[in-house]
Amino acid sequence: MSMNFLSLFFFATIAATSHAIPHQIHLLRPQSGSAGHRIAGVNCLSWRLAVETDNIRNWDLVPEACEDYVGHYMLGHQYRKDCNIAAVAAYVYAKNVTLKGDGKDIWVFDIDETALSNLPYYALPENAFGAKEYNETSFDEWQLEGKAPAVPAVLHLYENLMKLGYKIVFITGKSEKMRNVTEANLRKSGYHTWEKLVLKQTSESGETAVVYKSKERGKLVKEGYRIIGNMGDQWSDLMGNFTGQRTFKVPDPMYYIS
Amino acid sequence: MSMNFLSLFFFATIAATSHAIPHQIHLLRPQSGSAGHRIAGVNCLSWRLAVETDNIRNWDLVPEACEDYVGHYMLGHQYRKDCNIAAVAAYVYAKNVTLKGDGKDIWVFDIDETALSNLPYYALPENAFGAKEYNETSFDEWQLEGKAPAVPAVLHLYENLMKLGYKIVFITGKSEKMRNVTEANLRKSGYHTWEKLVLKQTSESGETAVVYKSKERGKLVKEGYRIIGNMGDQWSDLMGNFTGQRTFKVPDPMYYIS
Repeated sequence: MSMNFLSLFFFATIAATSHAIPHQIHLLRPQSGSAGHRIAGVNCLSWRLAVETDNIRNWDLVPEACEDYVGHYMLGHQYRKDCNIAAVAAYVYAKNVTLKGDGKDIWVFDIDETALSNLPYYALPENAFGAKEYNETSFDEWQLEGKAPAVPAVLHLYENLMKLGYKIVFITGKSEKMRNVTEANLRKSGYHTWEKLVLKQTSESGETAVVYKSKERGKLVKEGYRIIGNMGDQWSDLMGNFTGQRTFKVPDPMYYIS
Repeated sequence: MSMNFLSLFFFATIAATSHAIPHQIHLLRPQSGSAGHRIAGVNCLSWRLAVETDNIRNWDLVPEACEDYVGHYMLGHQYRKDCNIAAVAAYVYAKNVTLKGDGKDIWVFDIDETALSNLPYYALPENAFGAKEYNETSFDEWQLEGKAPAVPAVLHLYENLMKLGYKIVFITGKSEKMRNVTEANLRKSGYHTWEKLVLKQTSESGETAVVYKSKERGKLVKEGYRIIGNMGDQWSDLMGNFTGQRTFKVPDPMYYIS
């Protein structure tokens, strides 16, 4: 769906009854060019909920009107609290599962915006928390630095799952070329060990995340693993086939991957 | 999952880093008995997001600490805006589907808290927006009054879907015994016509919503209908089999149906 069309539709149908979002925030970055223009009628909390519930799909960019909102959300307490409750819900579930203890009870984690955070990259003015066009070159450069911090709640969950006896499998859309730097980054950020780290092969580059990840989870099941839990920031991590006994969505209002 | 356990876990792990929810709200109802007691550490916006993303399942009651929050949410602008954006996203999708026009293109709606609102009932002090134990007797009495208003955004979507040529099917967990009053209530609230109204038979009373609704959608598909869209307030409306080409979640932080 075109976000422009959605914005226009908002403007036409909802603006009359909606209230302006209070501008109680300081400027996160200089607003140059067209960034000063606001679209009337978008309630950014509603937009975020619609994204998190998968009601709005295939969106390109954070709506211009929500750029500051998303920035403050990601840098502030609410994002951290939202991650915490997802991790707590996952832990409460994980703790109550009786594991077989044969080393085949696994928990699947996505990496970007799940195990590791690219927030230092997305907070740069040229990325504007997802309100600016994705730049593959600069994102690759950032990845190669290997400096992504852990999402604290997810690292905490990881540690607790390890104590409960789960094996950890990371499945990421990052390229196989990034294996070494990804391994180093995971270790540096506190993820010391894992059963498998699955990266995307060049031959798989044309596959959507939902197809690629379903296939890779299918391979795990075929190898005898039981996917007890599965956590990701994208619905494409959590839908499709072999999704696991339970899935947990961590928030990500910065980008969409189908 | 036990909400008590979850609350305790919060208390133990998150309270240290969390901030109290500002008490900028007036009292919605007298707080008697234990209702004055607050659980530290529950961020109600995070709790609501976790419920809406299906991270927290099988919960019994709105956490005591979030009773006022949920009340204000349901009575205020945000709930209406959240319903609006779900309806807008659904409409943008529906408008871009090319229908066959043979009368078999259908849109499935749940009824309670989707097409119709039980908010006048849930706002009563004894129900406290889902913070008090569900009372089947009093809820049946309320249903028999047939006075539930439409959820405005959903009624608006219904009207627009009709204009686009969709046939409407309501699938509800309400009992077949409620057919007459439900039909009257739907008409009174603005839902003038529909292809089918599916209610739960006595023989199906032991089935969970996800089993019952999957089966009923399966029957529709067998009859040659194409479920283009499916909207409900519970994930059990939207998961299982024959879920439809797209699903849309409208908010409901008041109760959970598995």
